[in-house]
Amino acid sequence: MLQNRDPIHPFTTASRTMKLRNKYSGKSCQLFYKSNPLKIVAGKGCKMFNERGETYLDCINNVAHGNILLQLNKKFNHNFIKLVGHCHPDVVEKAYKQMSLISTNNRFLHDELIRFASRITHLLPKDLSVTFFVNSGSEANDLALRLANSHTNAKGVVTLNHAYHGHLTSLMEISPYKFTAEKFKSDKVDNVQVLDCPDTYRGPYTFHNYSNRLAAKLYARKAAKVIKELKKSEHGLNVFIAETYQSCGGQVIPPRKYFELIYKLVDEAGGIKIADEVQVGFGRIGTHFTAIENMKVRPDIVTLAKAIGNGHPVGIVITTDEIATSFYKTGVSYFNTYGGNPVSCGILNAVFDVFEKERLQLNALRTGIYIIKRLRKMKHHFNFIGDIRGEGLFVGVELIQDKKNRKPAKGMAIWVVNYMKNYHKTLISVDGPYENVLKFKPPLVFNVDDAKILLKALEETFNELKHPTNSSAIYI
Amino acid sequence: MLQNRDPIHPFTTASRTMKLRNKYSGKSCQLFYKSNPLKIVAGKGCKMFNERGETYLDCINNVAHGNILLQLNKKFNHNFIKLVGHCHPDVVEKAYKQMSLISTNNRFLHDELIRFASRITHLLPKDLSVTFFVNSGSEANDLALRLANSHTNAKGVVTLNHAYHGHLTSLMEISPYKFTAEKFKSDKVDNVQVLDCPDTYRGPYTFHNYSNRLAAKLYARKAAKVIKELKKSEHGLNVFIAETYQSCGGQVIPPRKYFELIYKLVDEAGGIKIADEVQVGFGRIGTHFTAIENMKVRPDIVTLAKAIGNGHPVGIVITTDEIATSFYKTGVSYFNTYGGNPVSCGILNAVFDVFEKERLQLNALRTGIYIIKRLRKMKHHFNFIGDIRGEGLFVGVELIQDKKNRKPAKGMAIWVVNYMKNYHKTLISVDGPYENVLKFKPPLVFNVDDAKILLKALEETFNELKHPTNSSAIYI
Repeated sequence: MLQNRDPIHPFTTASRTMKLRNKYSGKSCQLFYKSNPLKIVAGKGCKMFNERGETYLDCINNVAHGNILLQLNKKFNHNFIKLVGHCHPDVVEKAYKQMSLISTNNRFLHDELIRFASRITHLLPKDLSVTFFVNSGSEANDLALRLANSHTNAKGVVTLNHAYHGHLTSLMEISPYKFTAEKFKSDKVDNVQVLDCPDTYRGPYTFHNYSNRLAAKLYARKAAKVIKELKKSEHGLNVFIAETYQSCGGQVIPPRKYFELIYKLVDEAGGIKIADEVQVGFGRIGTHFTAIENMKVRPDIVTLAKAIGNGHPVGIVITTDEIATSFYKTGVSYFNTYGGNPVSCGILNAVFDVFEKERLQLNALRTGIYIIKRLRKMKHHFNFIGDIRGEGLFVGVELIQDKKNRKPAKGMAIWVVNYMKNYHKTLISVDGPYENVLKFKPPLVFNVDDAKILLKALEETFNELKHPTNSSAIYI
Repeated sequence: MLQNRDPIHPFTTASRTMKLRNKYSGKSCQLFYKSNPLKIVAGKGCKMFNERGETYLDCINNVAHGNILLQLNKKFNHNFIKLVGHCHPDVVEKAYKQMSLISTNNRFLHDELIRFASRITHLLPKDLSVTFFVNSGSEANDLALRLANSHTNAKGVVTLNHAYHGHLTSLMEISPYKFTAEKFKSDKVDNVQVLDCPDTYRGPYTFHNYSNRLAAKLYARKAAKVIKELKKSEHGLNVFIAETYQSCGGQVIPPRKYFELIYKLVDEAGGIKIADEVQVGFGRIGTHFTAIENMKVRPDIVTLAKAIGNGHPVGIVITTDEIATSFYKTGVSYFNTYGGNPVSCGILNAVFDVFEKERLQLNALRTGIYIIKRLRKMKHHFNFIGDIRGEGLFVGVELIQDKKNRKPAKGMAIWVVNYMKNYHKTLISVDGPYENVLKFKPPLVFNVDDAKILLKALEETFNELKHPTNSSAIYI
């Protein structure tokens, strides 16, 4: 009766898969390496394998943790690739067991939800004690806005330039990263105010001219005016929302004191502070579980997703009892069909177990220190490296055309990404408002040995740029 | 370092679990059977088991399919309950294999996505050929609004009274089911117009006074005015969105011709028609794969979720090439971290395989015919049954206090739900704007034998209401 009219063999060529994808899938969903995209059929640890069995070092997938070998069902164990889990087998096993037992919605009681809620709230500041389970970072940020609004009854949102908070209607409006340049004004809605991104390399106040502390003060001074005006407007101030470290915005780490000063302003205006830790949270920065802790401030709402589920669609919102109570008092119940189901929560707990057992936060810290030290050395040899920044396994390398005016080297960055893939089988990405920042945000198991491979490849690529040995080093 | 300070044993009592849930989880997330909620630790087919090993017949979980026994890991195989999958083992196995192989985002090519996209589009009208993968029905409906807006450049939304389209900011605004009675006006935003729910039992035009065809015409006549005015307003007409059959709104099936007439009006006004099939789609009504096909019209966008992933967080939006192209032309790419990942798509394909292999649509048709026939007979014996309506495994029983004025019997309906749980261990739910409609939307494997158990329990419960034998039949 119902038939699959386009049978596909798992190891068909990438070009055939791409042809079918173009036929059935929205073109707005972009591929990495557009002209020659990768077809990935398996993975293990920080490695990914294409349909021809070629191995790639993965420095992109901040969603995945995992490193133990797993012997698979023989049917899948083709001899030309070692088929082992990109995902951690402990996590896979737990998912399997819980899926076999029960998965239903959270209108029924079960323990996995409570177990994870208890663990995560104990890791965060004491007041952040109430959890809401959702299916993605986008759902988490949308709910965060709703929670805040129930408390403030206001609509005004203060967001940072180049921020990205998710793909939903309510989040596109507060994500300048997604505003198209030609219609920045029409994309921006009335109740949303955009602050300068506190980028001390390329923003209005940089470390070339200001101390870290003074830069923070100057960014905050401009923010004070915006917050005050929004507060007075018909919209009122609902929230200040920020990724603690901007990822899509170009791996930006704000100056110390920045959050302290801004949070104070928001508190005074009666607004809610949302820390979007979807990309940077869960131990990635090495020194702290969330980056906002490193900033020595306490948000009212924290959102987490991506890494926490190791690829499984989950997100979580953690807030104060006060805000959760305001939300409850609206009389509108909150129901999320899959949010907090036993399988999702079982996976969350399994990922957490591995995170603790394998001390992945410590690994992120250690590997990060090594990477940044090596990159800083490389900076002296290559004129086109403008800035190195990062903490733990959250690292950015900004490429420029000219040391003086810091003109972004977009074409060069894209060339590097492609060269790294084609000649070194190493996957990195490029981002930032000028598409000139090389991004490194690998799985948390990425260790110093992996880093050595990455850095060797990167150094060779940079050398190729400096002294081209073949015609490939042509970029626009 | 990181410790779970509230260790919980899987078979702790429901009351202990509830206590911890109250501590850590937002109170806005409600439980079924509030005063005495169920703790569910396992399931098989249409049965669910609590922590004491008691068995419940599940007529609620429209999210789950599945019926084959599965022998589990011994650790979990406590002898007081047969621990077998509520979820289908084929689906669980597929999830396990794919999770063990690779899960990454859809910026890399893989075949599971294309395979499912090909299958689902071949089941829908020819023009609905482009897919977008997301993580929930809410994400699907939000994206549907964005897709439409990119095509119409308008903001106006026409929705039905009592509709529920999801928990996100953009969807709460178009879900009158969630508007609180006391602030209906402030919940409703300016660009959203609410049509009467085309309910022929309790709406303005009922089958008591009008033929089905005439009722459809009268509902459409009122709609015409609203659509025209919205079109002329500053907002313009973006979409008409409707659940083909309203579920939360009280299992409402609109009169034949209703959609035909409304879709014609929307087409004339240049609007986009979104069919929300999240609850009712995927074979549930028995005669057709989606309910909108049964209405003999072709929407521009269809959203599906819930049952399609058998509990796994997935959703899908299917639209025309024309609309997908408009979305692409905005220049804003669409990226959903988990949407369309190999595990989610692998599960979609496995569910689809089972759906075909076990002919679940036919089962829904057969079981539905049996249930409705039996319910219609029961109606003659019980004065408080106002209306029986349904198709396939989508059935509603509306309870009333009085045949003449059809006053809703809310207290009675809630009493029935609790009595069915406590005395017959059968789980049904209550919904609708007056909370007086008993809802039956079981997993698609629910067969005639299951239906016999349900109907026997229901008949006994109704008899208890008619001739109380103990003091329990007291309701408010």
